Amino acid sequence: MEANASTTMHSHCLEISMEAHKVVTPPPMSTIQKLKIRLKETFFPDDPLRQFKGQPLKKKLILGAQYIFPILQWSPNYNLKLFKSDIVSGLTIASLAIPQGISYAKLANLPPIVGLYSSFVPPLVYAVLGSSRDLAVGPVSIASLILGSMLRQEVSPNNDPLLFLQLAFSSTFFAGLFQASLGFLRLGFIIDFLSKATLIGFMAGAAIIVSLQQLKSLLGITHFTTQMGLVPVLSSVFHNRKESMRKPKLFWVAAGAPLMSVIFSTLLVFASKANHHGISVVGKLQEGLNPPSWHMLHFHGIHLGLVLKTGLVTGILSLTEGIAVGRTFAALKDYQVDGNKEMIAIGLMNVVGSSTSCYVTTGAFSRSAVNHNAGAKTAASNIVMSVTVMVTLLFLMPLFQYTPNVVLGAIIVTAVVGLIDIPAAYAIWKVDKFDFVVLLCAFVGVIFISVQQGLAIAVGLSIFKILLQITRPKIVMLGKIPGTDIYRNLHHYKEAIRVPGYLILSIEAPINFANITYLNERILRWIEEYEAEVEMEKQSSLQFVILELSAVSAIDTSGVSLFKDLRKAMEKKGVELVLVNPLCDVIEKLQKADEAHDFIRSDNLYLTVGEAVSSLSSTMKDQSSTV
Amino acid sequence: MEANASTTMHSHCLEISMEAHKVVTPPPMSTIQKLKIRLKETFFPDDPLRQFKGQPLKKKLILGAQYIFPILQWSPNYNLKLFKSDIVSGLTIASLAIPQGISYAKLANLPPIVGLYSSFVPPLVYAVLGSSRDLAVGPVSIASLILGSMLRQEVSPNNDPLLFLQLAFSSTFFAGLFQASLGFLRLGFIIDFLSKATLIGFMAGAAIIVSLQQLKSLLGITHFTTQMGLVPVLSSVFHNRKESMRKPKLFWVAAGAPLMSVIFSTLLVFASKANHHGISVVGKLQEGLNPPSWHMLHFHGIHLGLVLKTGLVTGILSLTEGIAVGRTFAALKDYQVDGNKEMIAIGLMNVVGSSTSCYVTTGAFSRSAVNHNAGAKTAASNIVMSVTVMVTLLFLMPLFQYTPNVVLGAIIVTAVVGLIDIPAAYAIWKVDKFDFVVLLCAFVGVIFISVQQGLAIAVGLSIFKILLQITRPKIVMLGKIPGTDIYRNLHHYKEAIRVPGYLILSIEAPINFANITYLNERILRWIEEYEAEVEMEKQSSLQFVILELSAVSAIDTSGVSLFKDLRKAMEKKGVELVLVNPLCDVIEKLQKADEAHDFIRSDNLYLTVGEAVSSLSSTMKDQSSTV
Repeated sequence: MEANASTTMHSHCLEISMEAHKVVTPPPMSTIQKLKIRLKETFFPDDPLRQFKGQPLKKKLILGAQYIFPILQWSPNYNLKLFKSDIVSGLTIASLAIPQGISYAKLANLPPIVGLYSSFVPPLVYAVLGSSRDLAVGPVSIASLILGSMLRQEVSPNNDPLLFLQLAFSSTFFAGLFQASLGFLRLGFIIDFLSKATLIGFMAGAAIIVSLQQLKSLLGITHFTTQMGLVPVLSSVFHNRKESMRKPKLFWVAAGAPLMSVIFSTLLVFASKANHHGISVVGKLQEGLNPPSWHMLHFHGIHLGLVLKTGLVTGILSLTEGIAVGRTFAALKDYQVDGNKEMIAIGLMNVVGSSTSCYVTTGAFSRSAVNHNAGAKTAASNIVMSVTVMVTLLFLMPLFQYTPNVVLGAIIVTAVVGLIDIPAAYAIWKVDKFDFVVLLCAFVGVIFISVQQGLAIAVGLSIFKILLQITRPKIVMLGKIPGTDIYRNLHHYKEAIRVPGYLILSIEAPINFANITYLNERILRWIEEYEAEVEMEKQSSLQFVILELSAVSAIDTSGVSLFKDLRKAMEKKGVELVLVNPLCDVIEKLQKADEAHDFIRSDNLYLTVGEAVSSLSSTMKDQSSTV
Repeated sequence: MEANASTTMHSHCLEISMEAHKVVTPPPMSTIQKLKIRLKETFFPDDPLRQFKGQPLKKKLILGAQYIFPILQWSPNYNLKLFKSDIVSGLTIASLAIPQGISYAKLANLPPIVGLYSSFVPPLVYAVLGSSRDLAVGPVSIASLILGSMLRQEVSPNNDPLLFLQLAFSSTFFAGLFQASLGFLRLGFIIDFLSKATLIGFMAGAAIIVSLQQLKSLLGITHFTTQMGLVPVLSSVFHNRKESMRKPKLFWVAAGAPLMSVIFSTLLVFASKANHHGISVVGKLQEGLNPPSWHMLHFHGIHLGLVLKTGLVTGILSLTEGIAVGRTFAALKDYQVDGNKEMIAIGLMNVVGSSTSCYVTTGAFSRSAVNHNAGAKTAASNIVMSVTVMVTLLFLMPLFQYTPNVVLGAIIVTAVVGLIDIPAAYAIWKVDKFDFVVLLCAFVGVIFISVQQGLAIAVGLSIFKILLQITRPKIVMLGKIPGTDIYRNLHHYKEAIRVPGYLILSIEAPINFANITYLNERILRWIEEYEAEVEMEKQSSLQFVILELSAVSAIDTSGVSLFKDLRKAMEKKGVELVLVNPLCDVIEKLQKADEAHDFIRSDNLYLTVGEAVSSLSSTMKDQSSTV
């Protein structure tokens, strides 16, 4: 079909010397040095101190302050133009945050006002500490759902609302502590273990649970279900987040609609006095700012285990959402967010939140997209939102008295329905069937077992897949591509041909305790199969087994013994083992374990398969000519 | 030092055409086909049905019977000469098995006679089903220790000996069931996760616990502790198992000594009537063969959980020992043992054992070494041993009445002291420091926490290491080795030089959800560092980033998105992303995910780094000449 795309270049005649290049051992390094490099790559892959190098002390102090408080980076250059953009986007997300805050608090079985409190303090903390310019901070649906459902296992929000509230704040505290510790200890890679497949499956499952929960209340008053159609489909904003993030059509309608429907339905209930006819409404909300709540935190007692577990699960999930949304928008606008710094910012914002009557908050996907589309330029839009919420808390609370609960349910359902990402699930099915199984497990597990166990199963399965790849690594037979010195997989490159007398195998995984048994048996079976062919087809007998180790990125003590065992087994068959291109780590360990210098001999070790074959073949000829 | 070992070959001038070879997509396969291959390599890597291919039906039936009952393979050709060897070795291991059986049963807090029962039935079962010719079957120290200590957590062997015995038999049943299931379901690779480092640390820790336990009874009668010197050091046999397995000097003395010391000390006690003066003796043992015990198995009740757990742990550990010893001797004598078949054999032998008053048995390292050295040729030596034990059970039991317990303790201590393998631990320290940490954790964990938790920590740590390698994969910068087309790690090959305008990076791990964030940030940092160099040293500006993917053995859906994200980020910098030598799996998934054909374009995809650089460089020249 696309044969015309083949490139045929001008042929050059090059004189290439056929000297066999020696495999050298890497420069020696002490254990301490190696440990240092390893630790640096594990914990400081972003090299955060890079910018400090070679700067004068004063500059270093300024950079340090800016590093800790990113607000110092952008505030000196802040101007009216940026502020105009930020005020528009801040008001826009506030118009979303207020109805969503009330709704999500209800989803977590908390008093609606806690949702508003949570949209006031955390955004201020984030604006000072956070490095993303687009993150809109506040309560989110998934974390709210999980917080509510996990705490409800032990305490009823209806029978003991005060204890429930205390546990929610305590969970928030531990979630924040855990998030900040991950960032501080630079263990952020732990959240990487929630794969895309896991998250898509999990979010779809959670969305269905949330929707079903809301459906109950929605169905309670049947003549209001048509209201769902009035609430615009925010999901479109959310859906396209990966693709273009261009401002969708009717953007302002979409962004403003939740608030509009709240106002409209509140007026309707107020005018018709429907609350006296069975329509449940939010009811009186207390005016005033967040009361302090640090005295409500539980650090001991019978519920501590539950609180810790809830904090851990909601902490990880909300952190994943916050980091992912931060990275998405940073990539769009081509700036960097520092994952570990973000974790500290989100963590501290939750710790502070937990002592000011807020529950778990993070950067929400949907609201951040609105923020971005409304033209947010800096974290100042969070401050604008926060001030707007503050004004609401101080003066506008009576207005919500008649807001019908069903509208809040509809807002929740609309927001979470967007979490069901069928095209992404289909793309995963197309590319990797196993990933799709992980997705399905997360989905089914969350719906039918429980949130934690569904997640645990999916994460376990993802890790199992990685381990399985290592336990059963691929070994492929290489052949020479005619006219070149290139050796490639015979099965993949049909034109490649086998070299008689040689068995050239490429091992495509690190060699360690989990796979040496398999590798040993599998390689010996390749040899047996070759020998069977020799008998059948009268092929020339096997003389060399060449193991191409370019893809063996690491080896351990068991792996080293594999080579010894293989060599012994092959000696009995009169076959020689040749290694090609062992990488740094491999050659170093081979050398240390190999006191007899059996492997680090130049006639057993080559830089490329081509050189190995030509060198060994000429040695064979030399030997046969001298006989 | 060894500069003289360098090989310089005759230079040949070869005309190599510089045509850039196309990266082809692998031949299409359906999901079912791929699943079939994957399942086959996962569960049937040994291809057990290979020998049946192309055989007539009758032959197939014979081969099938031989496959299920390996005794049918060797029994038809069994002759007097083989029998002579087997009878010598069988009697030798019986002389070990009788005192060790009694000792190990005491170690497991079981009546001594159960140790003898366990040396009678299981060897017979193994002789029929097992494929190793050297395995000497019977109770072993580690499994005995663990069985005893785990069951003692809930039931006291002194207060309720009958219940304790029942639980021991039940654990044996579940251990056997679990072992046979692993073999039957071909999940044998699970035992591979006990790495060598884990096992060495674990066995040393267990040996110390056992020795301390015995020391108590040894110290009870101080004038007998010199006896320890009389018991010969079996450990030497065990110690050299990996190295040569040659018959050690004074072999017969070593092999016969435990029995001799039992006889000698028994006579001494009998003659001196020391049992009336505080020397504790074995006491009356009941004559007769194994009574049935299937009615004693617990399949429900409050202890079921404990029994299952004990069965699982002892099952895995004894299986690991049995399989490892089988493989070691098979490699020495150059025959194959089938891991999964061995698991079924060992499992069934324990299931049968549990209903005939036997507790957990497997192939013991020390006794198998003696068996091998005494000249065992087939599993018939197990039958000889079994018959000898039978004769002992029927007629010789009164002789053991006066055997002092302290000799049994000394036998245990001598056997387990050999499990402390300090040279192997040192070798691990030398080659891989992290493996040594795993070893230490297993050792310390077993001694100070508990057997299961020590093991769990060590296994967890081993798996964590693998995961860490994947989470933080190595990315190395490649340079051209002068005079060749070979590109290698700049840090490793000091003579390699960088190609101006190119950033050539090799990723040395599968790309998946656990490392895409790291890879993305790390690769972008390489680019930034290059750009910084450009500014500093006026190097020629970056035009191409070449990712060498030869070592990327697998990719998942998240991995595919990495390339998309990288391409986007690089486009903004005016840098082009070029992929080199993606393997089968990678190219297939790239193709499926890449609807715009951004990656599978021939100007973005090359077979080797050399071809990529020369092709891209000539394109650059063409473009600059036309401008």
